[in-house]
Amino acid sequence: VDPRIVALQKRACARGVIGLAGGLPATELLPRDELARVLADAATHHAVALTYDWPEGVAQLRAWIAGRLSARGATVDAQQVIVTSGAQQALSLIAMAHRGTQIAVGEATYPAAIAAFERAGVDVVADDADAHYVMPGVSNPRGVDLVEPQRAWWLERGALIADEAYTELRFDGRISRPLVADAPARVWHVGTLSKTVSPGLRVGWLVPPLREHQTLLDLKEAADLQTASVTQQAAALFLARFDYDAHVERSRRHYQARAARLCEALRRELPYARFAEPEGGFAAWVELDEPGDEIGLLGEAIAAGVTIDPGRAFRPRDAPSASSFRVSFSSAPIEDLAEGAHRLAVAVDRWLTRGARASRRRS
Amino acid sequence: VDPRIVALQKRACARGVIGLAGGLPATELLPRDELARVLADAATHHAVALTYDWPEGVAQLRAWIAGRLSARGATVDAQQVIVTSGAQQALSLIAMAHRGTQIAVGEATYPAAIAAFERAGVDVVADDADAHYVMPGVSNPRGVDLVEPQRAWWLERGALIADEAYTELRFDGRISRPLVADAPARVWHVGTLSKTVSPGLRVGWLVPPLREHQTLLDLKEAADLQTASVTQQAAALFLARFDYDAHVERSRRHYQARAARLCEALRRELPYARFAEPEGGFAAWVELDEPGDEIGLLGEAIAAGVTIDPGRAFRPRDAPSASSFRVSFSSAPIEDLAEGAHRLAVAVDRWLTRGARASRRRS
Repeated sequence: VDPRIVALQKRACARGVIGLAGGLPATELLPRDELARVLADAATHHAVALTYDWPEGVAQLRAWIAGRLSARGATVDAQQVIVTSGAQQALSLIAMAHRGTQIAVGEATYPAAIAAFERAGVDVVADDADAHYVMPGVSNPRGVDLVEPQRAWWLERGALIADEAYTELRFDGRISRPLVADAPARVWHVGTLSKTVSPGLRVGWLVPPLREHQTLLDLKEAADLQTASVTQQAAALFLARFDYDAHVERSRRHYQARAARLCEALRRELPYARFAEPEGGFAAWVELDEPGDEIGLLGEAIAAGVTIDPGRAFRPRDAPSASSFRVSFSSAPIEDLAEGAHRLAVAVDRWLTRGARASRRRS
Repeated sequence: VDPRIVALQKRACARGVIGLAGGLPATELLPRDELARVLADAATHHAVALTYDWPEGVAQLRAWIAGRLSARGATVDAQQVIVTSGAQQALSLIAMAHRGTQIAVGEATYPAAIAAFERAGVDVVADDADAHYVMPGVSNPRGVDLVEPQRAWWLERGALIADEAYTELRFDGRISRPLVADAPARVWHVGTLSKTVSPGLRVGWLVPPLREHQTLLDLKEAADLQTASVTQQAAALFLARFDYDAHVERSRRHYQARAARLCEALRRELPYARFAEPEGGFAAWVELDEPGDEIGLLGEAIAAGVTIDPGRAFRPRDAPSASSFRVSFSSAPIEDLAEGAHRLAVAVDRWLTRGARASRRRS
């Protein structure tokens, strides 16, 4: 990520502006008391929690992951699952296994996926590669399902890296059959508890194609030996003791209400902006007709008291670049969302004015 | 790591043999109740613990790390510290920053360091490279200080990757000035709580040379966004509330007693074996005069009811290869150590007999 963006966002945090940046879950949905209990219980009663485990991760957690995928129609055994330090580490390990090849990500995608792929020596392109990175159910940043409507087409592509970070947070609760169910030899399945339970645990997972399992396990071990035993064991206890599905359903309704609030305000405040109504997840993706310096737009936004994620971090280098940005409705207090959109409109106005002045100077 | 070794070790675990393999801390030293309390408190009372933080890690923990290094004579600021998922991740990130170069590790070293370096595209050699990997205070697997007695010589080498995983566990409590204090522009300092507090937390750290800080931070973010906030915050609370130095001092005495017990038994049971009395840490390194198949030795050991770590995992490919193995005294019940050494002697006997028979067949 561009260090200028990080510097701006950090300054904004300190000043208490309205945060429409980042992919953070709502604070009020974090199961704080439940996690406190299972963390303490894991440390006190489970031998593995405070010591080393094998690189693939805690057996009870892998069984839950495999069981959930199986319930959705996939044939996945707990032995195929590798617990990772969040979905991000799964992407980074997959990237290492694809060094020297190309991965297509579409015209806009999750910025840290691009970073993980590029750091590992993968050539990231928008289109036309042997491997494709997709987010079934809810794409990031667009907030809509770009996979299921063309499922058959996708399944004819080569390797698919299927990142289900937001899949369960579709507002309509319609969770598709996982891609790995239909093409187990070509799908790298990625999941996480970061969006539905807590990102602070860093518990994600990876189901690689069978023939790649040993390679990925070796990469995982070389990367950090294993994911924290204590958070894995706590996650397993959480999933065994509490009603995960009810928690996810509550979260869907919560985020749906937030999405509606933000979109309504965006339509009112930025009537000229283009965006799709999110079908799930944490954010909407806004496009403007005018090209321009999106980091400058972030600067204007912060000056106006709101943060956004500038579009260029989401684009592979060969993608067309109309101005765009991501606005998250997931974590700012819901009553601030309308004011956030208003400030954003002020910022876009100023930014467009400056841009127009700059182009007059150039001509 | 050779999958045959893993398969053998896993089978051994299941059968309850005496475990002289692995670098596991003593179960009785894990501060179980204290960690249960700080984990619960982190989740309940610290906002950052359950959500995302910045890639460099929790500020309170970085301040402790910097403070501790400063107290030992280094000029290290909290902003230079990057919290990692154990020391292993620090090594893996450092390796990525050294892709395409050579790192020298000596004739025997920590196997997962070799794995991390090689996976990242580093050429691992015994000697003569621009960068050297060292373990000040207590080397792994030799258990003795290979750095301080030749400190000036080491400080004339190029880059030094200084892994202090076991440094604080020197039995004499004499902790040297960190190498980073004398050559901050060339030392990559690595530390961890895995050996002194709990490996299940996966809390380690990295202080790279200043000019490399941004690169390493980008690599960390691409690898897993950040280390688990909840374990970082819990570690910070643990270090603030409890007497870490007293805990480390207790651990030193505990491991020293274990080391003495095992070494005495080794001298009695394997009088022909060569090993140095450990000065700290978890293990001793045993060398035999006869070359041979060390994985075969592990097989014999397990058959005799004991596990060890075969030497070849510790050697870079160009190192000379007399037979050797690591025996850990850190985690098996202390009253089993003498019996473990006895079973090991039985295994070595059988292995030597088989080896002799095999060479008679060959000649």
